Amino acid sequence: MAAKAVAVIAGVGPGTGASIARRFSQKYPVALLARNPKNYDGVIDDITKSGGKAVGFSADVSDASSINRAFAEIDKAFPGSLLAAAVYNVGGGLSVKPFLELTEDEFTQGFKTNGLGGFHFSQAAIPRLQKATELELPPTLIFTGATASLKASAKFSSFASGKFALRAVAQSLAREFGPQGIHVCHAIVDGVIDIERTSHIQFGSPDSKLNPDAIAETYWHLYSQPRTAFTHEIDLRPYVEKW
Amino acid sequence: MAAKAVAVIAGVGPGTGASIARRFSQKYPVALLARNPKNYDGVIDDITKSGGKAVGFSADVSDASSINRAFAEIDKAFPGSLLAAAVYNVGGGLSVKPFLELTEDEFTQGFKTNGLGGFHFSQAAIPRLQKATELELPPTLIFTGATASLKASAKFSSFASGKFALRAVAQSLAREFGPQGIHVCHAIVDGVIDIERTSHIQFGSPDSKLNPDAIAETYWHLYSQPRTAFTHEIDLRPYVEKW
Amino acid sequence: MAAKAVAVIAGVGPGTGASIARRFSQKYPVALLARNPKNYDGVIDDITKSGGKAVGFSADVSDASSINRAFAEIDKAFPGSLLAAAVYNVGGGLSVKPFLELTEDEFTQGFKTNGLGGFHFSQAAIPRLQKATELELPPTLIFTGATASLKASAKFSSFASGKFALRAVAQSLAREFGPQGIHVCHAIVDGVIDIERTSHIQFGSPDSKLNPDAIAETYWHLYSQPRTAFTHEIDLRPYVEKW
Amino acid sequence: MAAKAVAVIAGVGPGTGASIARRFSQKYPVALLARNPKNYDGVIDDITKSGGKAVGFSADVSDASSINRAFAEIDKAFPGSLLAAAVYNVGGGLSVKPFLELTEDEFTQGFKTNGLGGFHFSQAAIPRLQKATELELPPTLIFTGATASLKASAKFSSFASGKFALRAVAQSLAREFGPQGIHVCHAIVDGVIDIERTSHIQFGSPDSKLNPDAIAETYWHLYSQPRTAFTHEIDLRPYVEKW
Repeated sequence: MAAKAVAVIAGVGPGTGASIARRFSQKYPVALLARNPKNYDGVIDDITKSGGKAVGFSADVSDASSINRAFAEIDKAFPGSLLAAAVYNVGGGLSVKPFLELTEDEFTQGFKTNGLGGFHFSQAAIPRLQKATELELPPTLIFTGATASLKASAKFSSFASGKFALRAVAQSLAREFGPQGIHVCHAIVDGVIDIERTSHIQFGSPDSKLNPDAIAETYWHLYSQPRTAFTHEIDLRPYVEKW
Repeated sequence: MAAKAVAVIAGVGPGTGASIARRFSQKYPVALLARNPKNYDGVIDDITKSGGKAVGFSADVSDASSINRAFAEIDKAFPGSLLAAAVYNVGGGLSVKPFLELTEDEFTQGFKTNGLGGFHFSQAAIPRLQKATELELPPTLIFTGATASLKASAKFSSFASGKFALRAVAQSLAREFGPQGIHVCHAIVDGVIDIERTSHIQFGSPDSKLNPDAIAETYWHLYSQPRTAFTHEIDLRPYVEKW
Repeated sequence: MAAKAVAVIAGVGPGTGASIARRFSQKYPVALLARNPKNYDGVIDDITKSGGKAVGFSADVSDASSINRAFAEIDKAFPGSLLAAAVYNVGGGLSVKPFLELTEDEFTQGFKTNGLGGFHFSQAAIPRLQKATELELPPTLIFTGATASLKASAKFSSFASGKFALRAVAQSLAREFGPQGIHVCHAIVDGVIDIERTSHIQFGSPDSKLNPDAIAETYWHLYSQPRTAFTHEIDLRPYVEKW
Repeated sequence: MAAKAVAVIAGVGPGTGASIARRFSQKYPVALLARNPKNYDGVIDDITKSGGKAVGFSADVSDASSINRAFAEIDKAFPGSLLAAAVYNVGGGLSVKPFLELTEDEFTQGFKTNGLGGFHFSQAAIPRLQKATELELPPTLIFTGATASLKASAKFSSFASGKFALRAVAQSLAREFGPQGIHVCHAIVDGVIDIERTSHIQFGSPDSKLNPDAIAETYWHLYSQPRTAFTHEIDLRPYVEKW
């Protein structure tokens, strides 16, 4: 009998997180993390209607005790289940303003949401992933990056310092835990996500923004890679994107 | 009725090229290019036995007329077929020796096999891919890179200059033809491929070398991406690889 | 009459910071920042003996009020002086240990020392640099990076996330303030610095570690660049270093 | 008595090459290489009037025998002189056009001028630099890169493949010959050079284009670095440049 397993997605909102949750729910029950339950309630309904299983957990990724409590609740909600995959898809922390107008709080928000949140999430997820190396597919930890993971534009010091830091965490973890059979990926999502909030942004054709379901399909492919051929870094952008 | 289509793979030998050919043959007839027919004869047998269709064409990628002739023969062999995907997976050109001992021929071999070959292949493939944008999936051009696409080690000036040049070609084409709906990818294959020729290299576990079928599965995923979320660059390495 | 000016160096210890201070003191009075006055006392003596002027200020770069107080004291100590150059050379924050053993404090130390410290230092320095664009040479802000600014090795998630973040800050500031005539540089110092603390590390020849005076000479060159040809990023490593 | 020495600059035209030649002529006699003597005649006059010594040699960098003949003539013109520095600053090879309109000749021109020319130049220069390690400053080989060394824009496949290839050569040589005490640098010159030919391009202030004398000053600084702190890669751009 195959072992029971679960996937955890942190940062579930109306866009990429929801799509990733739906995609992984085709194979696993999914645990959804967001600060505000409103962000995952609709997704849980969707997944339930499709015959999948999803449970939401309210958590603040920048707070270790909040994250640890959420993972403990996940353990209880899915007893005996191994952690097949963990996706850190937390957005936010995006203060774009002239550097001299940034407050310390605004500046550090980029790091808290990305670097520090990624740290807390990984510290909770990795010991659980280490127990799941006998599953059919390698246990996987995926981080969502952005254009600002590689390029720090003017006025983006907060967000970019957070995304640069998150990329460092992802890279360091890949090098430490890859040899243990844990797959650590960093996906650079470069472009505007096609969600309701961005419906006013139009580039011509309807598919010129990033469809979150398409991102989720690539995340699923990353998860499906055997350890003989792991991808660590990948970019994703709409065909019309300048870069 | 769906349009007829074909996939072309250049650089078919016993490793990655053969696996890519087999993978794409599950959906399309495949045209296989290699300088020496011995390199594709076995693959054609495999594919034929599996119920697929494969035809081999002898071609020297560094010679425009040879490449153009091969594509003309492909057009004849698959009349009325659109070009769904073209994969440039040509290896070779790897002279590792002290710089002062390199001859001009040895040095330029890296460029001829990679940069120039990629140029000829793309000039033949792109006009055909441009006609295939109405297929279910976007027409796709994939180039196989290597560790040396990003890092030029001591004594690797020939191979690295070729692989750097090929990466430049891939990047420039992605920016020019992406907006036309053509998907151009560059895959950095970082590690030892697990084929008979490398059977003497052992790192512990049997899957510590790159399984070419796993590489092919990722190439197929790249092909399957809709234009709303194209990947341009991806890396692939075994879980134990230092990098 | 030429305007009076001063240079500020944060992170003055026995190595690079001291050398940078000595080099800039050949042209300007220098203000030296370190948490512990012991770190700059010897340097001040050196500079004074050589006929230069140096004043030390105790400050904790990760604390905005401490940094702001230090800059206010600098303004008083050098009344009417423009800020010609500011160098952020703060080391430390280097916890190298297995990821799962890192405490939150240890992890965030990398960011506090590098990203956050760089933020505070820049917020204090830039408004002063903006007033100095009429000096003979462009006002300059230099950040000291490390190997870990570009590559996050296993067990280096704390230090690397801090150095990645600092690089993001440097890049964003260069893009925002370069067009105002402020020169923002990021120097990647890749190798072992040749100081007393590293005297046990030997690679053969005596100059196979980075001589801090040589680093300082390059920082001075960066400062001397006119705005028609600014360097943003540079690397520095000993001739024997593998990279 | 100090050993006699000479510097060689390839790619001397009205801009950067001429400035580099003038700068190095302040310390060494200089040998100037260009395909067309018209390109260096004026520079030789300048240097002679300033009390320096310069000799021009006509050479085609993409032709091994032409380069070797030029170096043999340099040996004769400066008997007993060691090669202190060699700068490869060859421009050209810049065909910007739609990929499908590029001829093979146009495409390979980028590689011939940059990658292959860099190869020939290095094969001639390095054995001479190897004999010069006892000079006061380390023997140095500098290559001039461009924006296209790191980014291949649409329609730039020829130039970018050449500049990518040249960067690979520079990197590989730095790793092979650095440990022998030879300094190999790659300078990314990112922006419009301020010469007569570009006088129609105006960005506002007169120093918003790259002043070639400023570039030359940085090249001289690179040459002056001791082997304890070699720079391999540096960028140079005007303060107003977007990047």
